Amino acid sequence: MANLREISVSAALNLLSAFAFLVAFAILRLQPINDRVYFPKWYRRGIRNSPRRSGVCVTRFVNLDWRTYIKFLNWMPAALRMPELELIDHAGLDSVVYIRIYLLGLKVIGPLAVLAFLVLVPVNWTGETLEGVKNLAYNDIDKLSISNVPDGSKRFWVHIVMSYVFALWTFYVLYVEYKEVAAMRLRYLASENRRPDQFTVLVRNVPPDPDETVSEHIEHFFRVNHPDSYLTHQTGFGGVVGTKVDAIDYYSSEIQKLSEAEALEREKVLSDPKAIVLAAFVSFKSRWAAAVCAQTQFSHNPTIWLTEWAPEPRDVYWRNLAIPYFDLTIRRLLMAIALFFLIFFFMIPIAFVQSLANIEGIEKVFPFLTPLIETKSVRSFIQGFLPGIVLKIFLILLPTILMMMSKVEGFSSRSSLDRRSAGKYHLFLLVNVFLGSIITGTAFQQLKTFLHQPPTEIPKTVGESIPMKATFFITYIMVDGWAGIAAEILRLVPLVIFHLKNMFLVKTEQDREEAMDPGCLNFATYEPKIQLYFLLGLVYSAVTPVLLPFVIIFFAFSYVVFRHQVINVYDQRYESGGSFWPDVHRRLLIGLLISQLLLMGLLSTKNIEKSTIALLPLPVLTIWFHVYCKGRFQSAFVRFSLQDAMTKDTLERATEPNLNLRAYLKDAYVHPVFKGRSHFESPLLVPDEENNTLVLTRRSS
Amino acid sequence: MANLREISVSAALNLLSAFAFLVAFAILRLQPINDRVYFPKWYRRGIRNSPRRSGVCVTRFVNLDWRTYIKFLNWMPAALRMPELELIDHAGLDSVVYIRIYLLGLKVIGPLAVLAFLVLVPVNWTGETLEGVKNLAYNDIDKLSISNVPDGSKRFWVHIVMSYVFALWTFYVLYVEYKEVAAMRLRYLASENRRPDQFTVLVRNVPPDPDETVSEHIEHFFRVNHPDSYLTHQTGFGGVVGTKVDAIDYYSSEIQKLSEAEALEREKVLSDPKAIVLAAFVSFKSRWAAAVCAQTQFSHNPTIWLTEWAPEPRDVYWRNLAIPYFDLTIRRLLMAIALFFLIFFFMIPIAFVQSLANIEGIEKVFPFLTPLIETKSVRSFIQGFLPGIVLKIFLILLPTILMMMSKVEGFSSRSSLDRRSAGKYHLFLLVNVFLGSIITGTAFQQLKTFLHQPPTEIPKTVGESIPMKATFFITYIMVDGWAGIAAEILRLVPLVIFHLKNMFLVKTEQDREEAMDPGCLNFATYEPKIQLYFLLGLVYSAVTPVLLPFVIIFFAFSYVVFRHQVINVYDQRYESGGSFWPDVHRRLLIGLLISQLLLMGLLSTKNIEKSTIALLPLPVLTIWFHVYCKGRFQSAFVRFSLQDAMTKDTLERATEPNLNLRAYLKDAYVHPVFKGRSHFESPLLVPDEENNTLVLTRRSS
Repeated sequence: MANLREISVSAALNLLSAFAFLVAFAILRLQPINDRVYFPKWYRRGIRNSPRRSGVCVTRFVNLDWRTYIKFLNWMPAALRMPELELIDHAGLDSVVYIRIYLLGLKVIGPLAVLAFLVLVPVNWTGETLEGVKNLAYNDIDKLSISNVPDGSKRFWVHIVMSYVFALWTFYVLYVEYKEVAAMRLRYLASENRRPDQFTVLVRNVPPDPDETVSEHIEHFFRVNHPDSYLTHQTGFGGVVGTKVDAIDYYSSEIQKLSEAEALEREKVLSDPKAIVLAAFVSFKSRWAAAVCAQTQFSHNPTIWLTEWAPEPRDVYWRNLAIPYFDLTIRRLLMAIALFFLIFFFMIPIAFVQSLANIEGIEKVFPFLTPLIETKSVRSFIQGFLPGIVLKIFLILLPTILMMMSKVEGFSSRSSLDRRSAGKYHLFLLVNVFLGSIITGTAFQQLKTFLHQPPTEIPKTVGESIPMKATFFITYIMVDGWAGIAAEILRLVPLVIFHLKNMFLVKTEQDREEAMDPGCLNFATYEPKIQLYFLLGLVYSAVTPVLLPFVIIFFAFSYVVFRHQVINVYDQRYESGGSFWPDVHRRLLIGLLISQLLLMGLLSTKNIEKSTIALLPLPVLTIWFHVYCKGRFQSAFVRFSLQDAMTKDTLERATEPNLNLRAYLKDAYVHPVFKGRSHFESPLLVPDEENNTLVLTRRSS
Repeated sequence: MANLREISVSAALNLLSAFAFLVAFAILRLQPINDRVYFPKWYRRGIRNSPRRSGVCVTRFVNLDWRTYIKFLNWMPAALRMPELELIDHAGLDSVVYIRIYLLGLKVIGPLAVLAFLVLVPVNWTGETLEGVKNLAYNDIDKLSISNVPDGSKRFWVHIVMSYVFALWTFYVLYVEYKEVAAMRLRYLASENRRPDQFTVLVRNVPPDPDETVSEHIEHFFRVNHPDSYLTHQTGFGGVVGTKVDAIDYYSSEIQKLSEAEALEREKVLSDPKAIVLAAFVSFKSRWAAAVCAQTQFSHNPTIWLTEWAPEPRDVYWRNLAIPYFDLTIRRLLMAIALFFLIFFFMIPIAFVQSLANIEGIEKVFPFLTPLIETKSVRSFIQGFLPGIVLKIFLILLPTILMMMSKVEGFSSRSSLDRRSAGKYHLFLLVNVFLGSIITGTAFQQLKTFLHQPPTEIPKTVGESIPMKATFFITYIMVDGWAGIAAEILRLVPLVIFHLKNMFLVKTEQDREEAMDPGCLNFATYEPKIQLYFLLGLVYSAVTPVLLPFVIIFFAFSYVVFRHQVINVYDQRYESGGSFWPDVHRRLLIGLLISQLLLMGLLSTKNIEKSTIALLPLPVLTIWFHVYCKGRFQSAFVRFSLQDAMTKDTLERATEPNLNLRAYLKDAYVHPVFKGRSHFESPLLVPDEENNTLVLTRRSS
């Protein structure tokens, strides 16, 4: 184990390298030639059309104004300066709520660190167990940690009391934050301009009807069951019919050269009743009616006529719109099993690939490479790096694999796909990074140990090794966390790709527009990583407080960097109004719960009477707090209340009495392929706006 | 352990005693003097007014017609004869669905028994382990059970395959039953006459308003948010204001002699704004609008303006209507903790009382009793029976205690209180009767063992002792199950109480009406017991099939007896339309899951390779089946679909176009104390039926 000096040196080195990244960033971002890499958002939003030129001595490609280099860190205050309301307007609520997670990290861990250094560090420091034990290798960090307090000491009651203080503080901050985010979301929804999804409900699992087309069936159904408020509907295309999906894919890729054939094909899709999937976007005359429809159950068979609030058009994941109920439950079962195996047995296929990817394996498959491989330097390179590279490739591919699994599960919006993938990734990190680092060995071995250990032994085993792993996690935070953030802002990959494209492919201004890749906040990958740092902060707050400043630096640095990126770079693919917050909150509480169980386990090995009983109310309180917050706030993220809908409707009716809603909604929910093309006309739109008379049906009743 | 002959003798004795009960019942029920004890339902429904007289030789009190005694079991076919539809009409859907649980028991366990006797019993019988072991006491029952198959034998694969067959059969029967019960419920709701609760929604947690009374506030709120369909509302009285509750209690008990003071007091309650609780029954012009209102969320704050489908008026539990959200979550937390202690530590207070209730204790508290107690016979009676009696009293009080706990949790209808209490009692029986009988020792000792054992050891420990406990459970089924049912039909306690009342208290015909106590199906106590027998049947189906016939006799006997009781005796306090079925289904699946885990544990001690892996898909399938059924059917028991509501509305509008709904609903939801009294007039009923104009508010906006 490293001692305090070694850690300081390592921290200094890491800070230095992060600083080097920042300098590189500062220089690169000032070059006009890189402007589209570091400020794509301003181009996307149409605020900027060409690189800034702020002086006479600036050429087209390189910035020669030395004064701009002096203030090379001035992007930081700039990033912090934009007020939150303006930021919501500029980048959307999702991004703003996302960067609040980092701020929340500071709010939770900051005071915890102060308290821990004021109270726990002195208590630990004067514990003097480790000084007595001469033959044990100990270091300064251990002297500051709980390991320095002798077994059975009354001092542990300070830790127990402090763990209550920490939990209560965390509850308080989380409660206030949930409340604030819920309020932000409600304000956002209330102040939002008119959007198609406010009036629209996604209806899935429309039962087929022998006498009517799907479109007629939907219209009749809603005219009967929502006689006063039904307005129009658009059916989704593609999804159930395999060949038709291919046709659509085909359009997307070859759209330029085959427009003739395409028109023909599209005609076919539109006229073929089988190609129409059993899902539709049904629009209403008011938000109130849409809210009612989204929240109520239509048929007594809860597996047909499923209604839910329509995702905004960009957010729709078209392929998953039409999956029958039974298929959906089977898919989720299979994916749950797959996730279990992925988490606990992922090392098996990797070990297999690693065993293949050794020197003998390569020589067998590619005998002609033998002379090259047998070279000493190549040989040692392969032996040293190949297994690691195989694992690294898997870890890079992992979020994609998890996203594919979520897609198989059949969620119908990109935002929900992101949320589901984040949940899976969080589990993976928890088991394979957190637990896996504490108890060395594969997750499968851990699983086996846990199954053959009493449930009370698990927190003990894990809790006992927690203090010993503090230096490891400090290094992890610096290498993975700090460096990761610095790499995030440098955007090396998009930088290289942009310049390559620019050199070889870009011919028109349109091409240049497409060559810049702003990227987006990848919630599914980033958020579970934040949760890991939260977990480390909470777990070590009562055990080894020295770790906390490292977590705090991570949160502070991330906050500034991501605020900058959100302002200048990222271009979100959809806007869900911060609907991921309940997940963030839940996972934070899971982290808190884990930290409490591990502290119970750790203290139960320290011979303190009644410590377990004294700590037992903590997890109970945490679970209750979760239930309470869920009931109190979650619905703001799931449902749109009738009162709010009515308010917005009334306001709109007063300000725009002559609004033609039907025209406004006409093309809102059209498959991207058909988007904005005049060929497309829903054949069933009823021209008469106020047509509330009985609808003729082909069916002989 | 008893052998097969001893069990047969015991079974014969138990059958004989049950038979004696039935003969006693047959004789007693034929006496006209007992008519009101054994046929109260016919009196309550007004079909019968005085005891039957079927011949000249029948006197007023004693039946002397010997012919009627010969066919003393003819109540059984009579009980089975009434068709289900007529029975629904006669006794309500709740009762009919309830007795279907017994039928379901026959459908599940019957074929399991046949299969087990055809396949497993021969396999076990020819196993011949126990014959080889000379020094072990074994008996015929063990020879028929899985214990007779030698360790590591391939024969166990038959058990593994059969456990799949059993599970699939159980899934099939449960699925069909859930579907049928859901259909029955939907048919029942569709065919139901007009009832106030169809148009009414219970609104809770109405936020107080400084400018308006609660009643005005509610009216304004619903006129704004449901402008087209709001009809009227009635506010609940009592509940929040302690003193007023007392006043109401006061009325109930002293209502006869203090009518003057009462009128005054009631006036006070009505005029005091603080006495009006923050809950109301809001009625709408159509079922469709009520369904919409019950299923949607009004305010963005999900803890105020909570709406739910109104229970039918008899089903309302008035005291719990107005509990703030925060209180509710605290109450549920406390009750969950209390339940945990009740289940695992209930022996502690009982042991304490038992220690007090010994001879020395009694002598200390009541020294004057010493001479009496020191008598030898009294002394031995106290020593032998007192501890048992203390436990028995606790067990008799237990359902009441659990019901009180459910009431504290704040559920607002009697049906939900019954369902919650049943869940608690089920847990208690599971831990203290099922597990407690298998692993002797108190629940607390078990808990301690389980916490200090690996999770895989628990099914092993329990599973291993399962075969050894077969004879114990067979005896339990006979003594508790068979005898319990026979006692149920004899109704000894109501019989005695009725005749005592009749002798000393009854003066008028009205008194006699009140003296008869029909009782009701006590779902909270009976259903968890059925679940215990289901569990025994499922657990032993693959282990000791000899137990199954005993369970089958229990189900068959219970079915006939309860069908008789439902037809002739019970008077249900409310009708919930079989809304308890999802609970029954879930608990059955919990039983199936337990049986599968225990089989896994048992087989893992038998040295069969891969048995655990071969059985692992079973619990996964069971959980998936639960999730699937929940999604497929549960909503039929929770929500009323808009389509069904619209159908019923349309039909009613066509058949009764001039219905005055406001008059119909006027007094539907009035606290029982105020029921049917002309004094009571909701001061805020708006006389004008079609008053949809804007409502004036006192508030200065």
